[in-house]
Amino acid sequence: MNQRLQIETEILTLRTRHPFRIARGEHEDIRTVLIRVKDADGRVGLGEATPQLVYGETPESVLSALEVYGEVLPSDPFDLEETERRLLGALSGNASARAGLSTALHDLVGKHLGVPTWKSWGLDPATIPVSTFTIGIDTPEVIRKKVREASEYPVLKVKLGGGNDLEILTAIREETDRELRVDANCGWTVKQAVRMLPVLEEYGVTVLEQPLPASDLNGLATVTRHARIPVIVDESCHVAADVPRLAGCVDGVNIKLAKCGSLREAVRVVHAARAHHLMVMVGCMIESSIGITAMAQVAPLVDLVDLDGAALLAHDPYVGATLDAGCVELPTGPGLGITERTPS
Amino acid sequence: MNQRLQIETEILTLRTRHPFRIARGEHEDIRTVLIRVKDADGRVGLGEATPQLVYGETPESVLSALEVYGEVLPSDPFDLEETERRLLGALSGNASARAGLSTALHDLVGKHLGVPTWKSWGLDPATIPVSTFTIGIDTPEVIRKKVREASEYPVLKVKLGGGNDLEILTAIREETDRELRVDANCGWTVKQAVRMLPVLEEYGVTVLEQPLPASDLNGLATVTRHARIPVIVDESCHVAADVPRLAGCVDGVNIKLAKCGSLREAVRVVHAARAHHLMVMVGCMIESSIGITAMAQVAPLVDLVDLDGAALLAHDPYVGATLDAGCVELPTGPGLGITERTPS
Repeated sequence: MNQRLQIETEILTLRTRHPFRIARGEHEDIRTVLIRVKDADGRVGLGEATPQLVYGETPESVLSALEVYGEVLPSDPFDLEETERRLLGALSGNASARAGLSTALHDLVGKHLGVPTWKSWGLDPATIPVSTFTIGIDTPEVIRKKVREASEYPVLKVKLGGGNDLEILTAIREETDRELRVDANCGWTVKQAVRMLPVLEEYGVTVLEQPLPASDLNGLATVTRHARIPVIVDESCHVAADVPRLAGCVDGVNIKLAKCGSLREAVRVVHAARAHHLMVMVGCMIESSIGITAMAQVAPLVDLVDLDGAALLAHDPYVGATLDAGCVELPTGPGLGITERTPS
Repeated sequence: MNQRLQIETEILTLRTRHPFRIARGEHEDIRTVLIRVKDADGRVGLGEATPQLVYGETPESVLSALEVYGEVLPSDPFDLEETERRLLGALSGNASARAGLSTALHDLVGKHLGVPTWKSWGLDPATIPVSTFTIGIDTPEVIRKKVREASEYPVLKVKLGGGNDLEILTAIREETDRELRVDANCGWTVKQAVRMLPVLEEYGVTVLEQPLPASDLNGLATVTRHARIPVIVDESCHVAADVPRLAGCVDGVNIKLAKCGSLREAVRVVHAARAHHLMVMVGCMIESSIGITAMAQVAPLVDLVDLDGAALLAHDPYVGATLDAGCVELPTGPGLGITERTPS
């Protein structure tokens, strides 16, 4: 047990089915970093780091960070709490690299225990709320096509803030009366957001995510006061220590591994948010089933789920948590229960 | 797996080595409730409920509550999160009964996994801070005798608020220059507390616990503002939802299973407190090693430890976590790793 856990990395190039646009810009090829953590017995834990350009991360910066983190890994994968402390001590920031490592370590621990991670946490996957499926910013024609293609999903999340919000809402409602949530990805001003509130209501929108830039807490408080629907923040909330100042401003927080840096911190955000009676959501990036399955372990603890990142891919190299008509099904194998997709 | 988990109960009568007095009153015989939870395979998880008269609980009320809770237990001990929700739904309050059940369920899960509870939580017992040993309110002569008897413990916690505070502090400092913390158990007024602060400083006291009545948050904020040492609350903080209103008033919170109602809630209090940059302490009641060992599972996450409840007993029917010169040693057996004490 005295040999340090070993890391192997590989860049995964993922492609979305359709070009995917949000208020901040457009994605096509997505590059994430596959992490394999090996113990002395040859057991392997899988993780995925999904670098966020907006936080100064690239696949290459993730690889560099993992070089540093590899030097402070323990020999015992069970030493999770102290390992996180050491990782942060060795190199701060780099949340997506740390999240990928955390995922791999939890997968490895689950494989040692012989049970799924969610089970070792005492959670019941049957309590996971239905996941949204996301419609990116696009022309009304493409939006309508995407909505038709997503007919199996009972709840849609639409990206707004790209300048054609009304067109998009109209196009969607021409196609469907399904439940609709809106994510503006920081794309509005306070005035725009307050002006949009009655419009969202008219279109039957049930949740509004991150209407304003991340740091505008006063503005977010104003929008929340005016809103009849819950206002959830994403970019404004990274870690548990962000929660107290958000309580009283907004109605809830959206947790993502690439922001909070570990599965354990994700759970800590849940608990901090619950202590403040906030709603809790889990979200994802566009990433393979490894990243999605990791975040899905926490999903039995939350109110709102948006875990469609792998469902948006043209090809997902892994099989893990699945979205069956929006219902999140968690693997029952040990750890994350991820398997490689066999070529069909 | 479809047969409901079964509960067996037994009242434990425990006796302290010395009569034990705090600001609120005196204890001699302590009665707690031993809980055995059995699964269909005959595996047994052990728990202890330590009823608190001050919260309207008696051993008999614990037994009555367990009758109700027994009806909503799951068949699968791993179903911890949902079970807690069901228990609270079936009967609110009764924190010590729920805590005892939570302990037994976690013990059972650990036995299924084949690892100690702390290990399945990713914690390292080597990081547990040294525990205090408590000196109850007494005459100067008895105090001096108790301090001498406790010579192996490097940190003492002394109970004040009984009307002879100065006598006690003087008696202790005549015997020892060891680290000293003070717990007033709600026994002072704001004026008394503020007047005591320079005295505590003079006697080298390092931590002040619960100087004022539980609900006097304004008073606690005043005392904390005047204090150079950390002010920690115990009676003011039961569950994670209490944390936000305490942040900004005090420096930290003391978590006890008999207040928070479960091991999972204890962890939630830690996370909520950390999100607010509060100090975290774990404490105990006078109880057997079962209750102490349960709370000790959370101790690797905290700053201050007071887990001497079983060390104060004349006879402890169980062997679990031990205090070796104040150092908490956790059992390495599966679950809580508790064994029955063999007659010597």
